[in-house]
Amino acid sequence: MPDPTVTAGPREANVVDIAEKFTHFTSHWSPKIIAQTSGWEIKLVKAHGEFAWHHHEVDEVFVVFAGELTVKLRGDSEVVLRPGQLYVVHRGVEHRPYAAAECQLILIEPPGVINTGEAGGELTAVDTWI
Amino acid sequence: MPDPTVTAGPREANVVDIAEKFTHFTSHWSPKIIAQTSGWEIKLVKAHGEFAWHHHEVDEVFVVFAGELTVKLRGDSEVVLRPGQLYVVHRGVEHRPYAAAECQLILIEPPGVINTGEAGGELTAVDTWI
Repeated sequence: MPDPTVTAGPREANVVDIAEKFTHFTSHWSPKIIAQTSGWEIKLVKAHGEFAWHHHEVDEVFVVFAGELTVKLRGDSEVVLRPGQLYVVHRGVEHRPYAAAECQLILIEPPGVINTGEAGGELTAVDTWI
Repeated sequence: MPDPTVTAGPREANVVDIAEKFTHFTSHWSPKIIAQTSGWEIKLVKAHGEFAWHHHEVDEVFVVFAGELTVKLRGDSEVVLRPGQLYVVHRGVEHRPYAAAECQLILIEPPGVINTGEAGGELTAVDTWI
């Protein structure tokens, strides 16, 4: 879990412009932290293609900022999120994000969450601040 | 604190369209809950005019969805937030939101936070789901 006294202080003192932050990186499926509180972090992700099936032991919230994201769920169900739409993936719920074209996504989740959850694998990323 | 087994379940199973939710209410400074997890809630607020000076014992995140919000801080400092901009108000920090024209605001904070914090007063609202 990040140590907020080291990594978060100066950044959180400022106004964060979400669109501007999305210009700072190009990699897919690699969450970037833009804000941190005592209970949750806010991260940006660029999604493109299909991610791994996985779940987390905590809740996470997806908000689409630009583009379109499909969240595939077990049982052949899925939800499609467009800009300004929000979806809660509750703890333990297996899901597989998919974006046919690049999607700009905001994640809200507790500090220290690993993007691939319990599944691990080559898409596992180390979250960094931008 | 809301009981998620009673109030939150059905709503969270669905995609939440933030712009559409803002059409469901007109009152100012009265937070409406649109999503709830184990650690934080996401609320919508319509701000207009000047709110009370107050602080909270927890962190909260402000994100402007439409319009412009000024967050006044002690020591004659303030931050101005425009659409897509985010600001963390850390626990204990006294602040006074102000919007010259109506502003649509997204709040992210732990469950059970009272809008006026320790200050109380006539602007105190009971948060409800929309």
